[in-house]
Amino acid sequence: MANDLQTTLSPLAPAQFPEMLPVAGVRFGVGRCGIKASSTKLDLMLAVFDKPAGAAGVLTKSSTAGAPVRWCRKHLANGKARALIVNSGNANVYTGKAGDDAVKAAAKGVAELVNCRPGDVFVASTGVIGETLPIDKVVKALPKLHGKLGAKLAPGRWHDAAVAIMTTDTFPKGASIATEIGGVPVTITGIAKGSGMIAPDMATMLAYVFTDAKIPADVLQALLKSAADKSFNSITVDSDTSTSDTLQLFATGEARHPAIVKPGDPALRAFRQALDAVCLDLAHQVVRDGEGAQKFIEIAVTGAKSARAARCIGLSIANSPLVKTAIAGGDANWGRIVMAVGKSGEAIAETSLDIFVGGHAVAINGAPPAGYDETPVARHMAGRDLKIHVDVGVGRGKATVWTCDLTHGYIEINADYRS
Amino acid sequence: MANDLQTTLSPLAPAQFPEMLPVAGVRFGVGRCGIKASSTKLDLMLAVFDKPAGAAGVLTKSSTAGAPVRWCRKHLANGKARALIVNSGNANVYTGKAGDDAVKAAAKGVAELVNCRPGDVFVASTGVIGETLPIDKVVKALPKLHGKLGAKLAPGRWHDAAVAIMTTDTFPKGASIATEIGGVPVTITGIAKGSGMIAPDMATMLAYVFTDAKIPADVLQALLKSAADKSFNSITVDSDTSTSDTLQLFATGEARHPAIVKPGDPALRAFRQALDAVCLDLAHQVVRDGEGAQKFIEIAVTGAKSARAARCIGLSIANSPLVKTAIAGGDANWGRIVMAVGKSGEAIAETSLDIFVGGHAVAINGAPPAGYDETPVARHMAGRDLKIHVDVGVGRGKATVWTCDLTHGYIEINADYRS
Repeated sequence: MANDLQTTLSPLAPAQFPEMLPVAGVRFGVGRCGIKASSTKLDLMLAVFDKPAGAAGVLTKSSTAGAPVRWCRKHLANGKARALIVNSGNANVYTGKAGDDAVKAAAKGVAELVNCRPGDVFVASTGVIGETLPIDKVVKALPKLHGKLGAKLAPGRWHDAAVAIMTTDTFPKGASIATEIGGVPVTITGIAKGSGMIAPDMATMLAYVFTDAKIPADVLQALLKSAADKSFNSITVDSDTSTSDTLQLFATGEARHPAIVKPGDPALRAFRQALDAVCLDLAHQVVRDGEGAQKFIEIAVTGAKSARAARCIGLSIANSPLVKTAIAGGDANWGRIVMAVGKSGEAIAETSLDIFVGGHAVAINGAPPAGYDETPVARHMAGRDLKIHVDVGVGRGKATVWTCDLTHGYIEINADYRS
Repeated sequence: MANDLQTTLSPLAPAQFPEMLPVAGVRFGVGRCGIKASSTKLDLMLAVFDKPAGAAGVLTKSSTAGAPVRWCRKHLANGKARALIVNSGNANVYTGKAGDDAVKAAAKGVAELVNCRPGDVFVASTGVIGETLPIDKVVKALPKLHGKLGAKLAPGRWHDAAVAIMTTDTFPKGASIATEIGGVPVTITGIAKGSGMIAPDMATMLAYVFTDAKIPADVLQALLKSAADKSFNSITVDSDTSTSDTLQLFATGEARHPAIVKPGDPALRAFRQALDAVCLDLAHQVVRDGEGAQKFIEIAVTGAKSARAARCIGLSIANSPLVKTAIAGGDANWGRIVMAVGKSGEAIAETSLDIFVGGHAVAINGAPPAGYDETPVARHMAGRDLKIHVDVGVGRGKATVWTCDLTHGYIEINADYRS
C-alpha cells in the first residue's frame, strides 16, 4: 500500500532508467529468495568480481548499526573484495547474535561458490529492523544466483540489480559515466536504493559504485570519502540516520591505465570528477524518491566560517520541518530560513545575512530589501525544482545540500508503515 | 484558519484554565493595539511591579535572535525589573535597526508611565518574523493599559494575560502553586504561550513566572536555569528552535520569609520543587498544544553516560520524524526507536539496550524478548498519553523529555501558515 501511495504522490521520478555502461570484471546474479512477502519481487543480488577488486566503503555512523555494517567495517580494512551479497526486505539490525551468525553464513555460502575467503565477501541487508533474517532462504538461493552470473554482464542486469535492492523506493536508481585515467578509457557505473536518507524501518540507503580502474584501496577510500561528503552526506529527507547506510566503491582493475599511487595524482582529475558526478547523481535520485516528496530543493550556503560550518547551516535548513512544510505549501515564508540558520549554532553575521530564493533577494544585510516584491519568489516556489542561497557573511566556507519537502505523503507512508 | 484547524485536531487541551493564585506586588493591564488583524484579539500585555522585582531569565540560543531577546539579555545583568511589556502578532525579528528602535521606544514608553529607567522594563514580541513592528500602535496603547492596572491584580487578569500573548496556541496556558520558604507562605504563578517548542513564524515560546518570594537575582537565576533544563529545555514539538524563546522569573519580594543568600539554601527546598513543578506544568501544556498534536509522549532514558547524554538520546527519539509518525499512526514500530538511539551519537551498549513501551518490554539486551507479544504494546500505543523508556546500559545518567506526535495537522497548519 505504501508503494502505491508513493507512486501516486511522487512527481519527481526520472522518465526512465539511465543507460548503464558495462564495467569489465564484475557480473551480477539477481533473484528472489522469499524474504519479501510478494512472490514477484526481487530480493537478492549477488555481484562477483572475476579477480580481487579494490574495495572502499563509507558506512553509517549509527551506534546501533546492523550486523552487516559491522562485518563490512571489519573487512574493509583488507581493501579487497571478491563478491557482494545484498538482500532486501529485512535489515538484519538489532537481531542479537543471530544477526552476526546470518552474516557469516551468507559470506561463507558465497565464498564456497566463488572460491575465496568469507572475509572477501561484502554483505548488506535492507528492510525491517528487529526481525530475524531467514538466512536459510538466502543460503539456499545462492547456487542458483551464482549460476546466473554468465560469462559477462548482460546489459539489463544493472537494472535488475538496482531493483533487487529496493524497499520503499518507487524507482530503481542508477548512474554511469565514461571517463579516463592517463588517456585510457575508464568506466564508472553505480546503483543505489533509498527513499530519502532514511526510511529506517526499511533501513535505508545502499549505494554500490563499480569501476574498471586499477586503483589502490587507500586511494579508492580517499576518493570515495571525498565524493560521499559532497553527495550522500549532503542530502537529507527527514534527518533520521539509518542503521544500515552503506556506500561502497569497487575497482576491478581491468583498465590498462598508468599506475596510480596517491589520491592527489593529476592523472585522477577526470576520474575524480566523474566519481563525484556519479555519487551526486545517485544521491539526487534518492532525494527525488524521498518519501512523499513533491519538490527537490537545493540549498547553497556561502560566507560561512568553514565548509563544515556551511554544510551544518545547510542541513539545519534542509532538516527544518517548518521550512519543509512551507515549501510543500509553496509559501515563500523565508522567516523560517532565518530561524533555521539561527538554530544551527554556527557563526553568522546577522547584519550581513543575505537570502535568495530562486535567485531573487528576499533578505539583504539582515532585513527585507526595500520595496520587496514577493511575486517572482512565489512563482519560483510554485515550481518543482527550488533553489535557496544563504550567505552568512563571516568567511569563505561554502557547501551545497539537497532535500525534499515534507508532505502529507510522508505522514501517510510512515504512520502505518508496517500494516 | 490555522487556529480552527488545530482546535478540531487537538484532543489534548485541558478542560479549563487552572485556578491561578495571586502574587502580591504584580499587576496586569491587557488590551488590543491592532497588531493582530482581528479586531477582537488581545495582542498587548503589560505587567508592572509595585517595587523593583528580582529578575531572572533563560533566552533562546539562536544566533538570529530577535531585537527583544537582545534587549533582555543586556538588561538581565541588572537582575531587577519594574515592568514587562509583551505584544503578540509580530516577533520583531530580523527587522534591522528598526527592530532595536522599536524595543527602545516600547521600554521608554512604559518607563515614563511607571517612573523608572527604560532598562528596568523587559520587552518581548511574538509573531511573524521579518515584518516591521508597528511600534506606534504599541506606544499609543500604553497609557490605556497602564490605566487598567488597578490597585491590585483582578482574579481574571491572569487568564487575559495568558490570552494576550497567544499566537497559534489553541488554549491559554497557566500554572500556580502555593509553597513556603522557612515556613512562610509563598506563591508561584506562571503563564506561557507556544504551540510546541516551535512555530517559528510565530516566533514561539514565551513563559513568565511570578512569585512574591524575596530572593536575590543570582539565586533566582540559578533556580530558573535548573527548572528550565528539566522542563522547557526538555520538550520539543518539531526540533525547530525559535528566534524568540524567552522564559523569565520575577520575584516581587512581598513575602516576609527569612533572607535567602544562596541557591542551595535548605529553606528553598519546597520552593525549588514548586518552581520546577510550575515550569514543568507550563512546558507540558506547550507540548499538549503542539501543532497538530494528537498524543502526548513521555520518553525516559536511563543508563546513559551522563544526564546530558541521556537528554541528547531522549531528544533524538523525540525529534525523529519516523518515531513521531509511527506514534501518530499508533504503530508499535520500535525499530525506529533503535534507529533514533543510534543516530544520537551518544555511547550505548548495544547488547544491553532495553526498550519499554507503556511498561511492556519490546526489546531486552539488544534483541526482541523471547515470545514477544505486541498486543499490550499496541493497546498502549492506541492511547493518548504514551510512555517510552529506554535503558542504554553504559552508566547512571538519566533524563526525561516530552514531545507530541507528527500528524497531518502539523503539515496543514504549516504548509500555508501565512495565507
